[in-house]
Amino acid sequence: MQIGIIGLGKMGYNLALNLKRNGYEVIAHDINADFVAQISNEGIRTAHTIEALCEQLEDQKVIWLMVPAGEIVDGVIDSLLPFLPKDTILIDGGNSNYKDSKRRYEALKAVGIGFLDCGTSGGTSGALDGACTMIGGDPDVFEVVAAVFKSISVENGCLYTGAAGSGHFTKMVHNGIEYGMMQSIAEGFEVFEQSGYAIDFQKTAKLFNHGSVVRSWLMELTENAFAKDPKLDSIKGIMHSSGEGKWTLETALDLGVPTPVIALSIMMRYRSQMQDTFSGKVVAALRNEFGGHAVEKSDD
Amino acid sequence: MQIGIIGLGKMGYNLALNLKRNGYEVIAHDINADFVAQISNEGIRTAHTIEALCEQLEDQKVIWLMVPAGEIVDGVIDSLLPFLPKDTILIDGGNSNYKDSKRRYEALKAVGIGFLDCGTSGGTSGALDGACTMIGGDPDVFEVVAAVFKSISVENGCLYTGAAGSGHFTKMVHNGIEYGMMQSIAEGFEVFEQSGYAIDFQKTAKLFNHGSVVRSWLMELTENAFAKDPKLDSIKGIMHSSGEGKWTLETALDLGVPTPVIALSIMMRYRSQMQDTFSGKVVAALRNEFGGHAVEKSDD
Repeated sequence: MQIGIIGLGKMGYNLALNLKRNGYEVIAHDINADFVAQISNEGIRTAHTIEALCEQLEDQKVIWLMVPAGEIVDGVIDSLLPFLPKDTILIDGGNSNYKDSKRRYEALKAVGIGFLDCGTSGGTSGALDGACTMIGGDPDVFEVVAAVFKSISVENGCLYTGAAGSGHFTKMVHNGIEYGMMQSIAEGFEVFEQSGYAIDFQKTAKLFNHGSVVRSWLMELTENAFAKDPKLDSIKGIMHSSGEGKWTLETALDLGVPTPVIALSIMMRYRSQMQDTFSGKVVAALRNEFGGHAVEKSDD
Repeated sequence: MQIGIIGLGKMGYNLALNLKRNGYEVIAHDINADFVAQISNEGIRTAHTIEALCEQLEDQKVIWLMVPAGEIVDGVIDSLLPFLPKDTILIDGGNSNYKDSKRRYEALKAVGIGFLDCGTSGGTSGALDGACTMIGGDPDVFEVVAAVFKSISVENGCLYTGAAGSGHFTKMVHNGIEYGMMQSIAEGFEVFEQSGYAIDFQKTAKLFNHGSVVRSWLMELTENAFAKDPKLDSIKGIMHSSGEGKWTLETALDLGVPTPVIALSIMMRYRSQMQDTFSGKVVAALRNEFGGHAVEKSDD
């Protein structure tokens, strides 16, 4: 079976290698010619344009998008449309918002094209060696490529989640859970760090991965991080995010569901990106106003 | 080697069996004669009083306490003291507050008795088949019983954490992390539950345990719970707690460390124990006062 892949970033590149290892004939494209050249050296067929990609794909075309979420996905779909016969199957394996995926599913269904939204977890190593995939869309469309998803996922790491959008919805909530779990681990180690006990962070994380209640892949990554840098002196505590935690919170707000821990995990990421805060200035000013409490003067 | 065990609840009972399986001669005592009779049937030597327990232990006495945290620990230590020669080693394997453990360590050291605070994780199955243990106290005292801890723990699941109190401190923070992780998972599944998608909770939890970033023992327990009861219809969402999350938060407050996710995990447990809240009444009353917004009348 042939599979076209568009988007050769860390995830798409590794996915292409994973598919090739599993016996699929991959035809890969990226807007960046360097990535195309690089993957060509891995023995993967490449196409320098979207049109060329579509021409090389025979039979029922299956095209996997692994590009950044948002307008880029719409742009790639628009570029593809002139070259796609009916019954083509488009898979969006990126981190798209599930609402966008529902919209794209409907628009593509109207022109006879099958669309599957595939949430992909497990990081870049998972994309290469065995991912965790959750797929929404029409069941008959899923069935055509079910074996593909199964082959690139770890055992039991592939689930058809139901109606269009449910794959990306499931992945979104997965990431919301992930934010909360990461912040929980992080807060615990901050207490250790300031405890006055000479706690060895790496040994403690390693211990926690052997028989404790909090053993987890994230705790294993915590152990790895401390193994490389025992007190994380080399990095700043600035926490970026890619949007899925925020979407989980927005969804929870729309549904009227209390998710305080996920909410605060996101807020703490935003706080970490600020050197100083205006809210801090306001509180300091108010304490000064009513109680004459000293404020710290800004440097400039 | 002989080891006395005091406290034959779920943890202590299983620990006694674990020690026996590892070749130690266990002498077990509990204030509840039924538990003593029950473990006697397992082929474990028993003692009906603390004095009898101490008499049966030869050589350097090693006594493991597995009793509820708080005054009970002090009471058991007071009862033991008249029968303990110098160089006895007392291990507190329960969920004691690390500040109490420091205090007990100092008082016992003053009379020549070694005291180790051992945080024990992994639940009752861990106590039976291989626990995760973290031990604080004097290093020379730890060395005497290091092999005991190693034998009842899973491989790499035993760590000498340092000064007196650090074992229970590490376990306390472990539980704080656990609270946050559990609340994160729970919030995610609440979003699933109210999403409108027909998401299969058990299949989703199972999927998450295969290759995803949030794979963890807690997610495996989530999968188990949904396997038994697909929508958890048989249980109420009332979340009790045993104190260590609260101590983590108190410690964070004392240290001035922000731990918002752990804090809110605890608050959500308290909220779950209330049918209605006074704070809710206050906000409803205020909305009525300033905006004429309708309130819901109480039933009585």
